Amino acid sequence: MENFASVVRKLFQATTAPDVLNFATGSPANASIPLEEIRELSRDILEQDASGYRALQYNDPQGLIDLREAVAEKLLPRRGISGAKPSQVMITQGGMETLTLSCHVFIDPGDVILIEEPSFTQAIETFKLFEANCVSVECDDNGMLMDDLAAKFDQYKPKMIYVIPSFQNPAGRTTSLERRKALAEFANARDVILLEDDPYVELRYHGEDLPSIKSFDKNGNVIFCNSFSKIFSPGMRLGYLFADEEIISHVYDAKTATNSHVAVYNQMLAAEYLKRGMFENRIGFIRDLYKHKADVAAASIVKYFPEGSHFVRPEGGLFFWVRLPEGCMDTTEILEHKDEFKVSFVAGAGFFVNGKGHDCMRLSFGNFSDEQIDAGMHRLGDYIKATRE
Amino acid sequence: MENFASVVRKLFQATTAPDVLNFATGSPANASIPLEEIRELSRDILEQDASGYRALQYNDPQGLIDLREAVAEKLLPRRGISGAKPSQVMITQGGMETLTLSCHVFIDPGDVILIEEPSFTQAIETFKLFEANCVSVECDDNGMLMDDLAAKFDQYKPKMIYVIPSFQNPAGRTTSLERRKALAEFANARDVILLEDDPYVELRYHGEDLPSIKSFDKNGNVIFCNSFSKIFSPGMRLGYLFADEEIISHVYDAKTATNSHVAVYNQMLAAEYLKRGMFENRIGFIRDLYKHKADVAAASIVKYFPEGSHFVRPEGGLFFWVRLPEGCMDTTEILEHKDEFKVSFVAGAGFFVNGKGHDCMRLSFGNFSDEQIDAGMHRLGDYIKATRE
Repeated sequence: MENFASVVRKLFQATTAPDVLNFATGSPANASIPLEEIRELSRDILEQDASGYRALQYNDPQGLIDLREAVAEKLLPRRGISGAKPSQVMITQGGMETLTLSCHVFIDPGDVILIEEPSFTQAIETFKLFEANCVSVECDDNGMLMDDLAAKFDQYKPKMIYVIPSFQNPAGRTTSLERRKALAEFANARDVILLEDDPYVELRYHGEDLPSIKSFDKNGNVIFCNSFSKIFSPGMRLGYLFADEEIISHVYDAKTATNSHVAVYNQMLAAEYLKRGMFENRIGFIRDLYKHKADVAAASIVKYFPEGSHFVRPEGGLFFWVRLPEGCMDTTEILEHKDEFKVSFVAGAGFFVNGKGHDCMRLSFGNFSDEQIDAGMHRLGDYIKATRE
Repeated sequence: MENFASVVRKLFQATTAPDVLNFATGSPANASIPLEEIRELSRDILEQDASGYRALQYNDPQGLIDLREAVAEKLLPRRGISGAKPSQVMITQGGMETLTLSCHVFIDPGDVILIEEPSFTQAIETFKLFEANCVSVECDDNGMLMDDLAAKFDQYKPKMIYVIPSFQNPAGRTTSLERRKALAEFANARDVILLEDDPYVELRYHGEDLPSIKSFDKNGNVIFCNSFSKIFSPGMRLGYLFADEEIISHVYDAKTATNSHVAVYNQMLAAEYLKRGMFENRIGFIRDLYKHKADVAAASIVKYFPEGSHFVRPEGGLFFWVRLPEGCMDTTEILEHKDEFKVSFVAGAGFFVNGKGHDCMRLSFGNFSDEQIDAGMHRLGDYIKATRE
């Protein structure tokens, strides 16, 4: 543990100064959070003694049956998964805990996990906490390169492959349909666990929905992970994991031994939100909201960042991944000066395990107004330009 | 992970049959849960947009500053700890997660943890999940025997000592004042982490409050752990850990890497519950409630169990630890027949790591009426008597 880097601590503590625009954390827009619906649901749950006490007592470590049913009926079919059983669903403490529980079950110190290059900082920190060695697989705009995956697999004998297929964090790319099929086939052929982490999938504002990798899984090697943070509320800390019952039984043991279960009231709210059709009613509004913000962010990056800056326009999600042109200051170093230009972001190096990424940054726009996005990108762009000789 | 026993899964799944009185899980009484106060607090939090969105967005991984302040000001002084700073408090997902996070920070596979004999099943399962070796220290009615602790310390070089000082789970004993001082001195002298887990301490219905072991800690070796499950709501999944800032910084890293943070709304409710004086108003009622139930349970065990059954009358808490006389069936075996007498309990063997306890059982009475307690003990006692030749 002594060597466990505090990247995430620094990330969160970077947010304390109130006049700094925090483009670092991927907070969703307040406007995306269904506060009015939650007021109504909360009243309904707490006003009746029976449901009130149910909300406040212990319950099933696997998660409330109502919520597991709602996930199976309302969410998984949207990912190309039909006939899911509630017994194959485990409710977790946010999306992050799907990774933690999977590590408890499958990872011993020294095991290798193959990840995309680049990949989600916080996931890398989770894997490091379990003393796994992360090895990155080369990617193109369609996801992991299958040749490099096969080569790394043979070389490192990994216990797990970790993929973020939709609007990847941080690169913004989406794994193509063909590549999804190939990944499922690969996991089946090599009998290796593939962790499919898809928290942004519902935030698509361009292009067509794609079926999940899990939907092509024939032998139960794929664990599908998701979060309620972007479609309901991040503060409620809800996520879920969908896998074969054999895997769920081990995850269940790890869950009971680490923190018993997820808060019951929170699960009841989310279950009712799904069951009453509130999610379907609202998701279009949320997509339009982010489509607009993404347009504003893209325009302001083009306008203010130095020429030669590169970013891929994502088809969904809450952030842009920008690569600065040659001659700019290292982004880790730029971040140290954030109090001068009053903008925070995540420096690129934390998303790599091989020393790359010092010319990259991840910029989140989810919870800012048009004016804030424009002003923040303006100040940041000006600062970057001034560092360039 | 393959070897990780499913004791806890069995414990929870044992509760499914609706006509079985579940004396296994230590659920608090519904009547102890402040539903009316929570209705009021929930309305106050959700009705205002500012506090509503705060409740539903991401927040500090260490826990809400309001709740950390309330813990430092309202709860820790009751344990003999004055001048605690909010920076020394970490909010956790129930009491269980205080153990999980401590293991992430201090335990590597193969490390030894010294525990009381017997000790809390679920804690033993947590320690096993981290591949620690639990070694038990002999105890008398006043807690760990200091001679045996010193001998085991020298023999096993443990990374941690785990103590439940108040109405110990399962044995019901309370560590004496003198022993508390000795334990703190021992941890300081040997420079070892002592985990003081005190979830039942507020449920005292006989005798005098004692200061915590932590209150005698001079060098920061003691981590004080507690839960809101017995004084507020178990379903809300709230607990806290109090330690030196250096330890907290490592715990913080583990928390962000495992599940980001505890649900914000839940923390706001608990903070207001403490800050508005609701806890102090209610705790006397809760103690009286359990004092009465404990009297009923004690009387019914005396009345219905075979002669020679032994139990220590606890000074507080939610359960009785009963040792059956010679000639009775193994309690693990009795439990297999629970559908016949329609009572569940926890068999004693799960609380030991050295093969003992087959003549013991833990019986929780927290959430049952007088009639249910009497009827359940009657059926269980009759069954036990009939197994005795």
